[in-house]
Amino acid sequence: MKFKDIVFRTRSYRRFDQSSRIDQGTLEELVDLARLSASGANRQPLKYLIFNTPEDCARIFPSLVWAAYLNDWNGPEEGEKPSGYIIILGDKTIAEGFGVDHGIAAQSIMLGATEAGFGGCMIASIRREQLRNELHIPERFEILLVLALGKPVENIIIDRIKDGDVKYWRDDNKNHHVPKRSLDDLILKF
Amino acid sequence: MKFKDIVFRTRSYRRFDQSSRIDQGTLEELVDLARLSASGANRQPLKYLIFNTPEDCARIFPSLVWAAYLNDWNGPEEGEKPSGYIIILGDKTIAEGFGVDHGIAAQSIMLGATEAGFGGCMIASIRREQLRNELHIPERFEILLVLALGKPVENIIIDRIKDGDVKYWRDDNKNHHVPKRSLDDLILKF
Repeated sequence: MKFKDIVFRTRSYRRFDQSSRIDQGTLEELVDLARLSASGANRQPLKYLIFNTPEDCARIFPSLVWAAYLNDWNGPEEGEKPSGYIIILGDKTIAEGFGVDHGIAAQSIMLGATEAGFGGCMIASIRREQLRNELHIPERFEILLVLALGKPVENIIIDRIKDGDVKYWRDDNKNHHVPKRSLDDLILKF
Repeated sequence: MKFKDIVFRTRSYRRFDQSSRIDQGTLEELVDLARLSASGANRQPLKYLIFNTPEDCARIFPSLVWAAYLNDWNGPEEGEKPSGYIIILGDKTIAEGFGVDHGIAAQSIMLGATEAGFGGCMIASIRREQLRNELHIPERFEILLVLALGKPVENIIIDRIKDGDVKYWRDDNKNHHVPKRSLDDLILKF
């Protein structure tokens, strides 16, 4: 797959075929992509938790906040939930701050997931204390991002932005529309 | 190229064939990859400046701090300097903070640069006021990252980390060594 196609297909998916499981080896390979990605001052302070059993997925799901702009939707229903998770932690014994390391790592993982036939969503809106307690995550680790993964079942359409409204929305056929700014809006000249 | 190969080849390069120029169209395509990448709450607050003339590159270079761990090296010499730059700005009229959007965007750009035959370095250590003055960047934009790009001429070797020492170093043959943590060190279980 050409790299631009990988980027184009790497949308933020929130509905999955929950019966399509992600094996442990695939999750480990995705973390390896993050491992090989850039880290500020090469500190490499990120650590990872990976989960793929239905039982573990059920422990994580309640701590996640889904799709803030979809007011009448509280996240994927049973049958359409993620079948795997990668949780990115920041090890505070290695660095005080994590800069954008977790953004770099998460993007490598999500792009790699696309090539492997999966997809998902980077979630920063997390009930952190609930998740920490549920998974017994020690205080030395900051919970940075949860990457929800699975076999996507939703159709995502990129629209041209109108009147600066960035809110994604769903049409009557359950297509998920994402307004994106144009390239002309993004490249500035002074 | 397989995606893992793209990730593996996307090293932080700091020495380039300065005579190999990057055309405007390539830089625009790289920004388009960032445009199509995830953004927190889809706000898309990032803006971009792109430069590829020798004159513009010479204006940007003095504001960059290179390779903090290489004490006896102040950055690439004439002939080995970057031949293009993408500067990532945060538009404060769109968002108050930028989360890890610029990490996500920068990773898409650097991976795309690899596929296009280029390489470079994400630089966060920037003399920001000097760069702002030189390029007349209005105060409404936060300077987030400078991506220095070019045709790499350095050989980078990934080493296994020893005794937790993350400092990259150069050997007598000018190979650049980068110690990376092992996958076993990164994937935790509680």
